[in-house]
Amino acid sequence: MPYERDNIHRMQGYTWGEQPEDGQTLKLNTNENPYPPSPDVQQCLDGLQATNLRVYPPPTADKLRNGIAEHHELKIDNVLITNGGDEALRLALTTFVEPGTPLGFAEPSYSLYPVLAQVQGAPLCPVPLDDDWELPRDCAHQLNEAGSRLVCLVNPHSPSGRLFDVEHVSRLANDFNGVLLLDEAYVDFVDPSLRYDAVRLINAFDNLLILRSFSKGYSLAGLRLGYLLGQASLIDPLISKTRDSYNVNDISQRLGWAAFRDQDYAQECWANVRAARRRLREALAALGLDTPPSQSNFLLATVPYDAKLNAQELYLALKQRHILLRYFDSQPLEDKLRISIGTPEQNDRLVAELTDLLT
Amino acid sequence: MPYERDNIHRMQGYTWGEQPEDGQTLKLNTNENPYPPSPDVQQCLDGLQATNLRVYPPPTADKLRNGIAEHHELKIDNVLITNGGDEALRLALTTFVEPGTPLGFAEPSYSLYPVLAQVQGAPLCPVPLDDDWELPRDCAHQLNEAGSRLVCLVNPHSPSGRLFDVEHVSRLANDFNGVLLLDEAYVDFVDPSLRYDAVRLINAFDNLLILRSFSKGYSLAGLRLGYLLGQASLIDPLISKTRDSYNVNDISQRLGWAAFRDQDYAQECWANVRAARRRLREALAALGLDTPPSQSNFLLATVPYDAKLNAQELYLALKQRHILLRYFDSQPLEDKLRISIGTPEQNDRLVAELTDLLT
Repeated sequence: MPYERDNIHRMQGYTWGEQPEDGQTLKLNTNENPYPPSPDVQQCLDGLQATNLRVYPPPTADKLRNGIAEHHELKIDNVLITNGGDEALRLALTTFVEPGTPLGFAEPSYSLYPVLAQVQGAPLCPVPLDDDWELPRDCAHQLNEAGSRLVCLVNPHSPSGRLFDVEHVSRLANDFNGVLLLDEAYVDFVDPSLRYDAVRLINAFDNLLILRSFSKGYSLAGLRLGYLLGQASLIDPLISKTRDSYNVNDISQRLGWAAFRDQDYAQECWANVRAARRRLREALAALGLDTPPSQSNFLLATVPYDAKLNAQELYLALKQRHILLRYFDSQPLEDKLRISIGTPEQNDRLVAELTDLLT
Repeated sequence: MPYERDNIHRMQGYTWGEQPEDGQTLKLNTNENPYPPSPDVQQCLDGLQATNLRVYPPPTADKLRNGIAEHHELKIDNVLITNGGDEALRLALTTFVEPGTPLGFAEPSYSLYPVLAQVQGAPLCPVPLDDDWELPRDCAHQLNEAGSRLVCLVNPHSPSGRLFDVEHVSRLANDFNGVLLLDEAYVDFVDPSLRYDAVRLINAFDNLLILRSFSKGYSLAGLRLGYLLGQASLIDPLISKTRDSYNVNDISQRLGWAAFRDQDYAQECWANVRAARRRLREALAALGLDTPPSQSNFLLATVPYDAKLNAQELYLALKQRHILLRYFDSQPLEDKLRISIGTPEQNDRLVAELTDLLT
């Protein structure tokens, strides 16, 4: 008999995107930012003293926490710094989901949500999106009927890139009986002209958590850094009870602050990604690969049924040519490929290979 | 009604040791190593490129993992790298302890164990140590009777510093029906002449996990790095199912390897700490402060009932003089102080202040 719990024994783990270390592969599979981190991060790195690592780090990362709170016009008690966005998601499950109580999430979406639910012993309560990647109007009702106490909603949505507007989020927070965790891992790439801003809902809803990540917007996927925003009553049990006491190391706290402070650089990167996204979307459309309008740093391309290669074949052919996209081998995604936005040069390389393979 | 689960709402969080950032306090309260990390760590830091942080880190930290496996003459599948030892403890609870099933631990010991149990919804199954800090002979029987599936045993023990010998560990692993997690956070400070080596038990017992930490032995508390050793059947669910996918960041993997590789430097530090421990123990005894023989990097001093100040008063008086020790305000520790071993100069400063306060 195995020693692990039954639910752990039976479940499948999360399948992470491939991370080749050959140095020549063009990685457009895990939504990393194609631009390097702010030069201030290198400068901060250059000044780091190993002797500082001898002692435990500031347990609640208050310097970074305070800076983030000020940026969002919130208080320090509204912020929790985490070891990547994944930790924030896990902590939300640990804190708000009683084993046996279903976890809500849109389907399809981030494939980690059901994995975390299984670890917690929580049944799944998927809410299917319609053909336009919209949530059903009775979403909150479905979740309440199922008795769910936590729903995770990635916005902009992954893998489609669609943005649910603030009124939509607000209605869900209002109607749902549990905690709404709005996973804004990709929010930095939303067109500013849309004036999307869900953070202003924090003071209105005592059941809203907003997740941000440094992985994409600040080009720091390797650093594992994220944060949660919410009313103090939601943040407090996470910070004082369920979190590992020293969850974020000293270097991540320092480098994260260096990156976050340099908003000008970050915003310039985001604008570049948006411009590249527009151009890539047009190029894909010209090849017959339709994509929903994306407010994220990726596009979800549908490979037409009459194309020379289907989605999986295209994924494999590109991999042979050292370009990695993300292919999900499950309904309703098996005819689609998720493509992270690269630099203009990287996107051109992709389009050239696609043209060669498909025309 | 709060949104967090009932057990989370009712519980108290972990109280971490004070981390003053005033630069003048002598911290002898959280068992940090008084010596800086290996010079190789600074050298590795100096060569770090911020651009490497743009992409996700190696998900299972295989370079470090492989190096650690080779050092211990184990296979890579026997090793899990964690974000500090705390993550390893939490993962063991998540993976092996069904809510409602009691967690075993010696009492007193690391105060995080009962906190983690409460998060997991596990009742506590404390096994009281005797007056000599020894486990009762029927320890495994007590745990089996209670239906426990995981016991955490810190060895050398904290806060006493006592070492349970390998035969003792082996007997417990043999007799206990669940997983024995041997928390060797302080093992680097054991006198080599004792030939203590529990790692050789790994191949004999499919229910033994050994926890190591970089915090103390490698002077890297600020980095958050630890690892678990065990048979592949125990390690696999932790690594592939319950762990956050990218739990250890890129920089920690690199710096950790730089520190671990430099065993000569590490061993020199450990020898220095042992020498300072002998000297400090004698000085404390001369002041009437008895300590059990310690194989760790701290001493647990009993303040005699007829001393000029009791333990709590002594703790506060030293704090006023900018020396922090650890005081635990609970039975059977309320007449004791845990003192981390500093450099000879730091220990002299402590002894001088103690002499002034007590004589």
